Amino acid sequence: MGGGAGAPRGRFAALGSEELRHLKQLLGPSNVLTPEEVEREDLLRYNQDWMGKWEGRSSAILKPATTQEVSAILKYANEKNLAVVPQGGNTGLVGGSVPVHDELVLSLLRMNQVEALDTLSGIVTVEAGCVLEQLDQYLAKHGFMVPLDLGAKGTCTIGGNAATNAGGLRYLRYGSLRGNVLGVEAVLADGQVVDSLSALRKDNTGYGLPQLFIGSEGTLGVITKLTILCPARPKAVNIAFFACSSFEHVQRTFSLARQKLGEVLSAVEFCDRSAIDFVLKREAGTGVRDPLEETYPFYVLIETSGSDGEHDSEKLHRFLEAAMSDGDAAVQDGVVAADETQARALWRLREGVSDAMTTAGYVYKYDVSLPLPRMYELVEETRQKLQEAGVEATAKAAGYGHLGDANLHLNVTSLTGRDDKVLELLEPWVFEWVSKANGSISAEHGIGQCKPHFLHLSKSESAVALMRTLKATMDPKGILNPYKALRLQRALTQAEEAHVEQHEDGAELLRAARQNLEAIARKKQCIALLKVALESGNVGLLEAAIHQCERENMEGEVNLDAARRRLATLQTAVFSLGVASLGATLELSREDRECGQLVKDPEFTDRT
Amino acid sequence: MGGGAGAPRGRFAALGSEELRHLKQLLGPSNVLTPEEVEREDLLRYNQDWMGKWEGRSSAILKPATTQEVSAILKYANEKNLAVVPQGGNTGLVGGSVPVHDELVLSLLRMNQVEALDTLSGIVTVEAGCVLEQLDQYLAKHGFMVPLDLGAKGTCTIGGNAATNAGGLRYLRYGSLRGNVLGVEAVLADGQVVDSLSALRKDNTGYGLPQLFIGSEGTLGVITKLTILCPARPKAVNIAFFACSSFEHVQRTFSLARQKLGEVLSAVEFCDRSAIDFVLKREAGTGVRDPLEETYPFYVLIETSGSDGEHDSEKLHRFLEAAMSDGDAAVQDGVVAADETQARALWRLREGVSDAMTTAGYVYKYDVSLPLPRMYELVEETRQKLQEAGVEATAKAAGYGHLGDANLHLNVTSLTGRDDKVLELLEPWVFEWVSKANGSISAEHGIGQCKPHFLHLSKSESAVALMRTLKATMDPKGILNPYKALRLQRALTQAEEAHVEQHEDGAELLRAARQNLEAIARKKQCIALLKVALESGNVGLLEAAIHQCERENMEGEVNLDAARRRLATLQTAVFSLGVASLGATLELSREDRECGQLVKDPEFTDRT
Repeated sequence: MGGGAGAPRGRFAALGSEELRHLKQLLGPSNVLTPEEVEREDLLRYNQDWMGKWEGRSSAILKPATTQEVSAILKYANEKNLAVVPQGGNTGLVGGSVPVHDELVLSLLRMNQVEALDTLSGIVTVEAGCVLEQLDQYLAKHGFMVPLDLGAKGTCTIGGNAATNAGGLRYLRYGSLRGNVLGVEAVLADGQVVDSLSALRKDNTGYGLPQLFIGSEGTLGVITKLTILCPARPKAVNIAFFACSSFEHVQRTFSLARQKLGEVLSAVEFCDRSAIDFVLKREAGTGVRDPLEETYPFYVLIETSGSDGEHDSEKLHRFLEAAMSDGDAAVQDGVVAADETQARALWRLREGVSDAMTTAGYVYKYDVSLPLPRMYELVEETRQKLQEAGVEATAKAAGYGHLGDANLHLNVTSLTGRDDKVLELLEPWVFEWVSKANGSISAEHGIGQCKPHFLHLSKSESAVALMRTLKATMDPKGILNPYKALRLQRALTQAEEAHVEQHEDGAELLRAARQNLEAIARKKQCIALLKVALESGNVGLLEAAIHQCERENMEGEVNLDAARRRLATLQTAVFSLGVASLGATLELSREDRECGQLVKDPEFTDRT
Repeated sequence: MGGGAGAPRGRFAALGSEELRHLKQLLGPSNVLTPEEVEREDLLRYNQDWMGKWEGRSSAILKPATTQEVSAILKYANEKNLAVVPQGGNTGLVGGSVPVHDELVLSLLRMNQVEALDTLSGIVTVEAGCVLEQLDQYLAKHGFMVPLDLGAKGTCTIGGNAATNAGGLRYLRYGSLRGNVLGVEAVLADGQVVDSLSALRKDNTGYGLPQLFIGSEGTLGVITKLTILCPARPKAVNIAFFACSSFEHVQRTFSLARQKLGEVLSAVEFCDRSAIDFVLKREAGTGVRDPLEETYPFYVLIETSGSDGEHDSEKLHRFLEAAMSDGDAAVQDGVVAADETQARALWRLREGVSDAMTTAGYVYKYDVSLPLPRMYELVEETRQKLQEAGVEATAKAAGYGHLGDANLHLNVTSLTGRDDKVLELLEPWVFEWVSKANGSISAEHGIGQCKPHFLHLSKSESAVALMRTLKATMDPKGILNPYKALRLQRALTQAEEAHVEQHEDGAELLRAARQNLEAIARKKQCIALLKVALESGNVGLLEAAIHQCERENMEGEVNLDAARRRLATLQTAVFSLGVASLGATLELSREDRECGQLVKDPEFTDRT
């Protein structure tokens, strides 16, 4: 099956009345919602993402209350070949938690209990469906906090956070969930429950199984419980909001903040004026207002969290002195929150951007990592592109995000609604731009159904191949969150297969086509090996590469004669010098270099 | 094959002269050491662990210089079915990096270059064979540090650290390598190079592939390069050394340190008097001496690291006030290092324990995580056991470790050398004790060849099963670091197979035996499912469980009649109440509870 939105339906079974009866018996009738029995509006929260971008038509929404029920559902779904999309708070930004076709929705929302908290170590055991803010409030009572905070905290679930390896606002200080999640209980595609729920700070017995489920977007298993190491809640928090005259000044502000604030620095966020304008418009009348008298092109929000308010204030003061020094000061103006209300209002300016832009029109959202110095270039070039296409009046670009993590959110709001012209301008251009700049096409939002087609821009072929191997091993039928995270390597799509089956020699042709694709894959490997071997000047490697090319009958497809000449030269040299590798000492001739080049044969195009 | 020290040799090929010739051609003759050409003493550093506990007889030591060479070696080894043990500095404590039989040693020591450092973000790209201390010194020049420090830093390699998910002294502050390693380049068993070397702070494209290699002890792939997020080097460091009169006071000291030192706390270590005595004896004459006038049963070392020396000193002062308050003070005496020399001497008291005890005799070492309040009980009970056995004069137990991580190192030094009587007293008793106390049998040292037999004491069956699946998928021939980390599920060992093959109906018997073992495994699953189903009171689940038991013909092995009666009761109740699950409302009769019990049939004994 192909991946992503628009992928043809995979060859899964359709939910029949007998299966529905079984699922109702398993969960109780009230915990199974079907389109026949429930209004479309009530189903929308499960079928559609919150931005209204992706919408599936699930054949049933399932609401298990226990791990055993999740296990029974998946065991049954796997046997019956029914596709399943796991879902938490459904606040994702890449369509990862909604069905693409008629997948069963497996909602974890009823599994929302905090099971245990070790008040000595701060290790909490919690069910996957617990809402992030509720978990944080529970921990606050005991002096701890979740090492994760994000705008959707009132709706998103901790299981969904882990399944997507969510980043957010505390990342700079507390790092990734990969470091903070100590254990996971997860249910595999076939219903097996994997208990890897260590509640110990250190446990080095065996492989990092919890990590398989963190960030794999529900495609390798369904997280049902987690143990998380939670830091102490800071006693003192300071928020400051600064204006900068250029992105270069923004970077200097960040650099000074790291130097002067050191270990108490807990967030460095930024937005441009365009982003702030959206927020101020949306929040007009709610008390949120521009805290500075003049307008500036850039704003930086800085948060400190520490155990000693006086020390933190002193550090902040020293930072202010350095940042507002005479001459070419890093910041032009700024304000430090005097109380919690003011602090919340300042945070709102930054946290409100996403909502405000979504309300103003149809938003094209990009979440990318880039080398810091080049981060804002992308926003500027996007504006230029919109201008050149003459749509700058209705398509507004804004840049904001987690400066401390070099994580840019680029949003383009089309004020006139969904606009294919804007989309065509932006994709794949944005992703390719990021890939060329050595960035990541998804810093914290994941791949979902939005980006499987672009995965290769941030991941090597070898990494994608290993992902596929893991997926095929852990979910052989592919029932878990299909069309998401990666495109599966299949010889032909369902549509092509149906076409072939109508042909009189269909089965035979299909078999031949598959074999052909396999041969192409092997040949590609040979070419890659030959290239490496030629560059390395390593005799053994080159021998092996030539041998493999011969085995695949690639005489006409790569210049094997040149490779053999190169080998002979190397062997002579190696013999006389007594070393095996000569990459650095013998220069490759142009012909030699080219002999590994891919012959432009249409057969070599990847059709998957 | 079985796992661990003493496991029979797996059915790997032996290195022949043709293979040796090929490897020498691949790497150059000087980068292949063989027992025929090199003195045993020179081979020992590769064949034996540093404690002299485990020693293999590698058929060749291979020293590749590039990832491509590692890839060529593994591709060849996999084709020829040659077993390989990857090795860094060979400082491990569980025999994970030395051969058990004649495995090829793949030494990464020549791959020791720092490739790049982003001085803005602190992200470093480094080859796996770089020695930890050298990497740290390189980073120090640019104001950064490795987020990891441990006693073996002068010898261990960063690749080995990652492969074993090493913990160490900075763990409390900077967390696990799982959080700090951003990317990994690794070579799979078949020679494929997986490039997952992201040098971005945030990159959420795809599965957590680097995590597969972190902590898997070279059994899933060989790490060749890493990208690591390195924190800024603190400007101010304080070291203090305290004496406590009981382990309860030790815990109070830790608790106060967390409260008063907050974000600048970077290490909380402890040792008992017995450990300190070993160090003082070993270091006599080197300037390391007892810093306190009297002797005490416990010592706590506290380190702070921060960006502002004055603030840190103030915090430390406040901590001292609280810890030395009148009445039942947490600490009895203490000293704060006045300069770096004194700081190093204090650290030496803690870091020197392991070496000192190894020098004094043959050491049985245990590295466990335990709930903090019970941590020292294990040392006390060990001493009691040694006393009861009358060996307390020659077998000395000491406890020390990373208090802040609830990570205890229990060492028992036999002053008279290796002593099987002591070993029998300690194992499996220590591991079982830890398991019962909900601890981990390996907090930071891993499993290696030392503990595969005890893995089940810290890992659930389901987790071990998933580990096996990953191993079988990524290394189907099992050539990578065999006998380590986990015992592979094999119907019969090689020895048993050889025995069977001598029998006239050997092949048939072997087949039957294997089928029998598979049936037993299936039956075990049925029993587990039936138990869960009975406890849950879930109709669908119980139906499924009974059905599976019937399919396996388990009528006489579990009490299926009772299970069916229970189902009927549930169905009636469910029908009248209209809910599917009644676990909480209907009580199980004693007979019902017992019907899932395992029939004590010798066939059910796991022979693997």
